[in-house]
Amino acid sequence: MKEWEKNFRQVKPYTPGEQPKQTDVIKLNTNENPYPPAPGVLKLMKELDGTALRKYPDPEAGALVSAASRFYGLCEDQVFTGVGSDDVLGMSFLTFFNGDKPVLFPNITYSFYDVWADLYRIPFETQRLDENLKIRKEDYFKENGGVVIANPNAPTGEVMNLSCIEEIIQKNQNSVVIIDEAYVDFGGETALPLISEYPNLLVVRTCSKSFSLAGLRVGFAFGDPNLISALNRVKYSYNSYTMNTPSILLGAEAFKDRDYFEMTRKKIIATRERSKREFRSLGFLFGDSQTNFIFVRHPGIHAEKLFSDLKDTGIYVRHFGSPLISDYLRITIGTDAEMDVLFDFLKHYPGIR
Amino acid sequence: MKEWEKNFRQVKPYTPGEQPKQTDVIKLNTNENPYPPAPGVLKLMKELDGTALRKYPDPEAGALVSAASRFYGLCEDQVFTGVGSDDVLGMSFLTFFNGDKPVLFPNITYSFYDVWADLYRIPFETQRLDENLKIRKEDYFKENGGVVIANPNAPTGEVMNLSCIEEIIQKNQNSVVIIDEAYVDFGGETALPLISEYPNLLVVRTCSKSFSLAGLRVGFAFGDPNLISALNRVKYSYNSYTMNTPSILLGAEAFKDRDYFEMTRKKIIATRERSKREFRSLGFLFGDSQTNFIFVRHPGIHAEKLFSDLKDTGIYVRHFGSPLISDYLRITIGTDAEMDVLFDFLKHYPGIR
Repeated sequence: MKEWEKNFRQVKPYTPGEQPKQTDVIKLNTNENPYPPAPGVLKLMKELDGTALRKYPDPEAGALVSAASRFYGLCEDQVFTGVGSDDVLGMSFLTFFNGDKPVLFPNITYSFYDVWADLYRIPFETQRLDENLKIRKEDYFKENGGVVIANPNAPTGEVMNLSCIEEIIQKNQNSVVIIDEAYVDFGGETALPLISEYPNLLVVRTCSKSFSLAGLRVGFAFGDPNLISALNRVKYSYNSYTMNTPSILLGAEAFKDRDYFEMTRKKIIATRERSKREFRSLGFLFGDSQTNFIFVRHPGIHAEKLFSDLKDTGIYVRHFGSPLISDYLRITIGTDAEMDVLFDFLKHYPGIR
Repeated sequence: MKEWEKNFRQVKPYTPGEQPKQTDVIKLNTNENPYPPAPGVLKLMKELDGTALRKYPDPEAGALVSAASRFYGLCEDQVFTGVGSDDVLGMSFLTFFNGDKPVLFPNITYSFYDVWADLYRIPFETQRLDENLKIRKEDYFKENGGVVIANPNAPTGEVMNLSCIEEIIQKNQNSVVIIDEAYVDFGGETALPLISEYPNLLVVRTCSKSFSLAGLRVGFAFGDPNLISALNRVKYSYNSYTMNTPSILLGAEAFKDRDYFEMTRKKIIATRERSKREFRSLGFLFGDSQTNFIFVRHPGIHAEKLFSDLKDTGIYVRHFGSPLISDYLRITIGTDAEMDVLFDFLKHYPGIR
């Protein structure tokens, strides 16, 4: 090792789901929305002024912050935006978790949390899910340097009641509590109404799933203006212009069509509920997912083998290496037609029925 | 102060140049390119497939990395891309500067360097420019945990010979040396040919200035594959998808029109040289800028007053608060017509001539 290599930051990166180059696959592996962005977004995309790209974007991403604040009925100073909820969460870890006490989050959850903690040398302690893969609120009633809960949780899809979430916040008045609501538009209750009550609550959202804008990279944190300005201070200490002009303008446009948002979100929920019936009839076991994916296992089947056989037939789903959940597959809800192809394959798969 | 506020990261953010909402101003304050992006970029913008935004971008930004590597005659594993050179530089500080020895950079330079160092608690020591605002290479011959040199330097515009840059690299075989070449397309010699020779050299570039793409946020680091993979490991520990789909596709397109790039860059250089003659005839003092801005002062004029009078007349330039350079204005090179309006104003300004 060269002398200067000793100063490299040692990290174990997060592995994102595969983005295959072929377009003729059924892609149920990264929780993308099967429907295109709102018609207004597609229209505006054709009308964007390319010559304006010579100028820096609005560092405050004003149009986007304003559109999101109106959509959620918040004030603009309660809104922070970033390059997907990953950027928002990563920056939140860096901003809020600088104490000596461990930050608490579940042992099975979004697998980026421990990566950010490692990246920034933040002490953390994971809390075991119960035997039904549910979060036990009592695990978060002890001393800590912060709490992070995904609700609904990933990759389990399980929801925690808002009253339990509120209890966790109440018992943690000395920490910042982050509720990661990447999937809440597909089920569960949002904690957004609580941010005016609890100055230590940060609610994180993304346009990647329910707004069909994964390719644009737009995420948000909502909270007390004091939290938001702390986040902005760190943002302005890293990169003045994180949001580029297309993401500001197209992201803002997405919030202007609530009907389309409601329609696509409800279609996905309907397909999910139908998919649960199909999975059940095929002998799969799973919890009551309230997200745009279902986390399934099958007593007669080797999950990694099924993952690989599905991939060979052009159907991408997600399998996680962690031994705790290696029996499971996380399957994104696609269109009804896409799910039909999946179920048709599964019906003839050895070991199923 | 609340208990949880004690865990907030304390930072002093960088202040970006103003982005006025009005469009009828002459904007010479943020070193933007006065010419639009290449015609191919404008054309592709109209043709982008909006429905593709429902999917995540390519996490490796393959099309962009490949286009940049071809443009610069490098291999793809020598290229890292980020959300402007700010993202690239910030991530480089986090990746490479984890030692106890101070990182060295000039006392007058891009004022984000000390902000990143503070953000990540990196020890640093600034080195004084000489009386002509030039970097003294000998200041970088001592023990350190890293070296960062902007060449040409900002906001002075002064260039260091490539032989001096190479000498600094040679004397620092135990540190990562970053050469920030945000402005090198407007003058000076690039250190790119040295990256195959020195595995500890990282050269940073941006599409914001010479490619007219400030609004897209595209920057690069070029270096030995070992440095690039260290950067990517940290990137994948922060945000799998930093580059959104429009920035990947439109950024890649910009590299396909070398003629347009050469034409606009030469126009700006010609306007700069003409502007030097005008400034000189008006009694302004300045060094031999090799960038797309000139850093001027005038013995008979209060810089902050002139800054504010220019702003009142709709001409935005940049004034920095630091006492070391408070006598100066940094004036971006606009079109010839924009510069004419500026010089016309200055010719009648009290204290000039």
